[in-house]
Amino acid sequence: MDGSPRRGACRRLLLPLLCLLLQGATAILFAIFVRYNQETDAALWHRGNHSNADNEFYFRYPSFQDVHTMVFLGFGFLMAFLQRYGFSSVGFTFLLAAFALQWSTLIQGFLHSFDGSYIYVGVESMINADFCAGAVLISFGAVLGKTGPAQLLLMALLEVALFGINEFVLLSFLGVKDAGGSMTIHTFGAYFGLVLSRVLYKPRLEKSKHRQGSIYHSDLFAMIGTIFLWIFWPSFNSAPTTLGDGQHRTALNTYYSLTASTLSTFALSALVGGDGRLDMVHIQNAALAGGVVVGTASEMMLTPFGALAAGFLAGTVSTLGYKFFTPILESKFKVQDTCGVHNLHGMPGVLGALLGVLVAALATHEAYKDGLQSVFPLVATVQRSATSQAMYQLLGLFVTLMFASVGGGFGGLLLRLPCLDAPPDSQCYEDQIYWEVPGENEDEAQGPLREEERDTQA
Amino acid sequence: MDGSPRRGACRRLLLPLLCLLLQGATAILFAIFVRYNQETDAALWHRGNHSNADNEFYFRYPSFQDVHTMVFLGFGFLMAFLQRYGFSSVGFTFLLAAFALQWSTLIQGFLHSFDGSYIYVGVESMINADFCAGAVLISFGAVLGKTGPAQLLLMALLEVALFGINEFVLLSFLGVKDAGGSMTIHTFGAYFGLVLSRVLYKPRLEKSKHRQGSIYHSDLFAMIGTIFLWIFWPSFNSAPTTLGDGQHRTALNTYYSLTASTLSTFALSALVGGDGRLDMVHIQNAALAGGVVVGTASEMMLTPFGALAAGFLAGTVSTLGYKFFTPILESKFKVQDTCGVHNLHGMPGVLGALLGVLVAALATHEAYKDGLQSVFPLVATVQRSATSQAMYQLLGLFVTLMFASVGGGFGGLLLRLPCLDAPPDSQCYEDQIYWEVPGENEDEAQGPLREEERDTQA
Amino acid sequence: MDGSPRRGACRRLLLPLLCLLLQGATAILFAIFVRYNQETDAALWHRGNHSNADNEFYFRYPSFQDVHTMVFLGFGFLMAFLQRYGFSSVGFTFLLAAFALQWSTLIQGFLHSFDGSYIYVGVESMINADFCAGAVLISFGAVLGKTGPAQLLLMALLEVALFGINEFVLLSFLGVKDAGGSMTIHTFGAYFGLVLSRVLYKPRLEKSKHRQGSIYHSDLFAMIGTIFLWIFWPSFNSAPTTLGDGQHRTALNTYYSLTASTLSTFALSALVGGDGRLDMVHIQNAALAGGVVVGTASEMMLTPFGALAAGFLAGTVSTLGYKFFTPILESKFKVQDTCGVHNLHGMPGVLGALLGVLVAALATHEAYKDGLQSVFPLVATVQRSATSQAMYQLLGLFVTLMFASVGGGFGGLLLRLPCLDAPPDSQCYEDQIYWEVPGENEDEAQGPLREEERDTQA
Repeated sequence: MDGSPRRGACRRLLLPLLCLLLQGATAILFAIFVRYNQETDAALWHRGNHSNADNEFYFRYPSFQDVHTMVFLGFGFLMAFLQRYGFSSVGFTFLLAAFALQWSTLIQGFLHSFDGSYIYVGVESMINADFCAGAVLISFGAVLGKTGPAQLLLMALLEVALFGINEFVLLSFLGVKDAGGSMTIHTFGAYFGLVLSRVLYKPRLEKSKHRQGSIYHSDLFAMIGTIFLWIFWPSFNSAPTTLGDGQHRTALNTYYSLTASTLSTFALSALVGGDGRLDMVHIQNAALAGGVVVGTASEMMLTPFGALAAGFLAGTVSTLGYKFFTPILESKFKVQDTCGVHNLHGMPGVLGALLGVLVAALATHEAYKDGLQSVFPLVATVQRSATSQAMYQLLGLFVTLMFASVGGGFGGLLLRLPCLDAPPDSQCYEDQIYWEVPGENEDEAQGPLREEERDTQA
Repeated sequence: MDGSPRRGACRRLLLPLLCLLLQGATAILFAIFVRYNQETDAALWHRGNHSNADNEFYFRYPSFQDVHTMVFLGFGFLMAFLQRYGFSSVGFTFLLAAFALQWSTLIQGFLHSFDGSYIYVGVESMINADFCAGAVLISFGAVLGKTGPAQLLLMALLEVALFGINEFVLLSFLGVKDAGGSMTIHTFGAYFGLVLSRVLYKPRLEKSKHRQGSIYHSDLFAMIGTIFLWIFWPSFNSAPTTLGDGQHRTALNTYYSLTASTLSTFALSALVGGDGRLDMVHIQNAALAGGVVVGTASEMMLTPFGALAAGFLAGTVSTLGYKFFTPILESKFKVQDTCGVHNLHGMPGVLGALLGVLVAALATHEAYKDGLQSVFPLVATVQRSATSQAMYQLLGLFVTLMFASVGGGFGGLLLRLPCLDAPPDSQCYEDQIYWEVPGENEDEAQGPLREEERDTQA
Repeated sequence: MDGSPRRGACRRLLLPLLCLLLQGATAILFAIFVRYNQETDAALWHRGNHSNADNEFYFRYPSFQDVHTMVFLGFGFLMAFLQRYGFSSVGFTFLLAAFALQWSTLIQGFLHSFDGSYIYVGVESMINADFCAGAVLISFGAVLGKTGPAQLLLMALLEVALFGINEFVLLSFLGVKDAGGSMTIHTFGAYFGLVLSRVLYKPRLEKSKHRQGSIYHSDLFAMIGTIFLWIFWPSFNSAPTTLGDGQHRTALNTYYSLTASTLSTFALSALVGGDGRLDMVHIQNAALAGGVVVGTASEMMLTPFGALAAGFLAGTVSTLGYKFFTPILESKFKVQDTCGVHNLHGMPGVLGALLGVLVAALATHEAYKDGLQSVFPLVATVQRSATSQAMYQLLGLFVTLMFASVGGGFGGLLLRLPCLDAPPDSQCYEDQIYWEVPGENEDEAQGPLREEERDTQA
């Protein structure tokens, strides 16, 4: 650390002040507006004539915990594949998600449960807040290693607000179905992050190229993230769906879709790999595309075969994206997409939205019978035809892409404000700018900068 | 990578084609045969007159998620103890299990829920498919590091089918009880893998000896697997048992059995260790034997003391097996058992089957009262005496050993087919044959082969 | 290993004999006293006229599994931050907790469910046993790296007994509320461990200073522990609370408190850090203080704002404690607190107890209505005023501090018994004393001692 240049007091105070300011603001808003809902409030719950076993907690909390694990552990460790950016990947995920949970409680509360005086919270709002944090972390993946924590907090501040508005427009205004968030979470998070990354384009990023890859152990840490995301994705998609067959079917479809995206990812990775070898980047990421692609359709009567087919397609598209499209995205479109969120969340998210259009269009009273009410209430009550519902689904995709692009563009301009402590092009993917870093092994446990870095920083 | 010999096109295409072929075949079979069951189908579920809270989902899904975690994360990381085989351990676990889930849905479906036209799926079939994947991964443990992914997929193809048949014979034909799979999963998976490993015997494996051990960090990664297997094993054994006291008692018994196997493992490991030191191999594996040994008996009235005693015995036998029996197995019987599955799953599985014989023989109407119907339905309905049930349990063990041995032998012959891309004896326990591998630290992040390997490969 | 001195037979047999003795004793006591309760016993459960869905298992088991994960994986890996003590951190956590579960089943059973003949066990006793194991592991954190496994088992033997008595005095005798254990678990575990560490003071510990820090990868392993503790803490605090709104509200409050302690930890860590850099020690630990501080109050009507405020305060105090108080604790008070349990469990635990005093004092019939019965039964039945309940809460804190201090002091004297195989001052934080340790990378996979250690040991 001794060799590094001293940062000015302004920059040293930036993160602390921003954290304190944001925390103070949300705390005040919580004090004024946030109240327990009738399932969590001692007085309200005991007013009703119901068994404790009826409490929403018992139907949603196990799913919530799986989602919570995905957000904090899954995303955090998935991004820890970089050789010298593990502290930041896991640590900033922690910080961003913790802030996003509070802030999206407020935003989503105002849009969905505000009764004129108060916002009411319980396990459903907890799940929705975690979903919003997921979208923020997807965007984080696009700019991973090229942004500081203060920039990221501002990104979250903006993105959570836009996420809430977009979600409100889709679900409440357009009557779109999107339980697992192919549109609201994955498409939105990916394109918000990609446009933002475009605006933050770093022309001399090749100076940090030597830190952009993984090392053996960092790839194993990333696999912890992958596996937790993979195993709990059925809970992610099913967490907010209607109780009973709705949650059950959603989990089942997601489970099968993921098995198929795993097989297609292995197949394609070996096919396009040098000398037939598998690439860890594909396995860590594209194998998850099966969860993204059924985010909209898994609560519908997709059929088990439909889930397999969708997952297979998503794994294929995603792997090919990593191999062929990511380089073009950087060279032609100047979008530097660190984690390849375009391949894991962008394209599979759009595919998932289109799959939702298709399955909605095919919905018949015959196939759903009395269950139609809970999946497509507007079709069940004859306010819409299935075709009309499909068109609204498609409209939802375009609205999402519009919100994400404009929001990401605006976010990029915001994050380019000077004094936000962005890392220089030659110091990207490097923990030491923001963290006290010990050595890689016990002989250098004091964490000295290596020769080359000293030169760079001097 | 540059120094390695180019593989022929045939071998390069082997894994992709096999994955695509298997995925295509299961997808077609899914399209023809697999349908939502009445708990997951929108039309079927809403036909009934029941509350959404009655859906099987709420009683099985949390257990399913724990089992799912064990299969993908637990087994995967437990096998990541090898210093240069972490990608393959975690990655091939991922591939094999993803395929096995689809394939066993079909096999088990045809055997258990086929109504002449369709197979019906829901959370119970998901649990059973995961169980079958667990057996495949146990066999994988026996041949870990000595087989390529194409071989492993063929092994899974065969093993899943035999697993299903053996399970059907035991549960449906012989009326054997084996909720947690001491026989159907552990004994079957272990001896299938061991016989298969015998047939694949590699006489010059000592050439790969330097890669067969662990390094400090790989042992910690393996402990992640161990701990997740250990904490979720109560869910594994209880996932398919009858609701109510059945699941509750099974989880409780497993919990106590595991604490006792942990204490006996620490005791024995220090006792037989060089200079009183503990051996990570024992702790990672033998401490889990308490879960295996109560796989059959934990749903019965084993008593908490019985659980402790069984766990204690299993930990003891397993640790002694690692110390004294594994070397003999290799030198005398030519069975190279990479993970020591004979010690963790083989012997404790057989012990667990015998424990089931004993506890079944001791079952009385006095001890179970009206609960006898759900644990031993054939005894409750006086179609069998308790002694007779015990004899059937014993028969189940011999049937399992027979299926596993013959199946493993046949599997071994299948896997010796040329052009299946098996690693040479000098290149076992090595990720670089099948994976693009980065370096161990940032100075060699491009992953060059070391001098010695270049020579070997040249 | 070759360079190390041979240990005497007495010391080699110490751990095996102690494990076997303790396991034998608990097994005998289990045989005599422990029986299935009416929810786990086949005969008893089927006697009642209830649905299987009413079984306590379905309301508590998912929370139990989260707690179980925290105890074995969370605590174990959180303590794996030390560069050469990962095996011991994870392994001894495993051993201690496995023993503590059995032993506390007995102790807590005798105190809470003994009917003159038997102790009855089920999912609630499993949760309580895990809670007790948590307290033991907190104390382990204070003496981490400076104690051998035999010492630790004796510590657990004593601490579990005292934990049970203290808990009984608070909950049953004083009528104190402490669902998440701010007092019974965190305050008790921390001060027991700190006083014990004081008695075991090692004057020449600076000889092991070079092993006391982390390395890059060990910090990432520790973050696995942190994240699992963080995400599952809502389950920890809510696991034993009353069903319905009680569990729901407790989980919600804990969730918000943790988000606030995370933000304040990041703010304070950067503020007091060298050159504005974040410190992994703070992030790994202080961010969790929000879970500790609402251990008592989260089941009460704390309000979401109250949860945020409490979490914010706890994160702040804890981070400042790590920065400024830990060095003083060692230099002035001769308390060597390896993991800083005073900062994570001690001070936040005391704050949590005081928060419980405050929120109890503010309890009104107006705020709780019919729910008052389940949160403050003695106030609801007019046996106590809210102010009186608050005074009892405060008394509970003092009783806990007294039990912890006296117990820790006595424990320290016990652990100073010769022949308990304590590590010498120059060999602290070192796995090789108790474990067969492979090398750090593949070139030294045989694990030779480094030059300096050979000298030290010779």
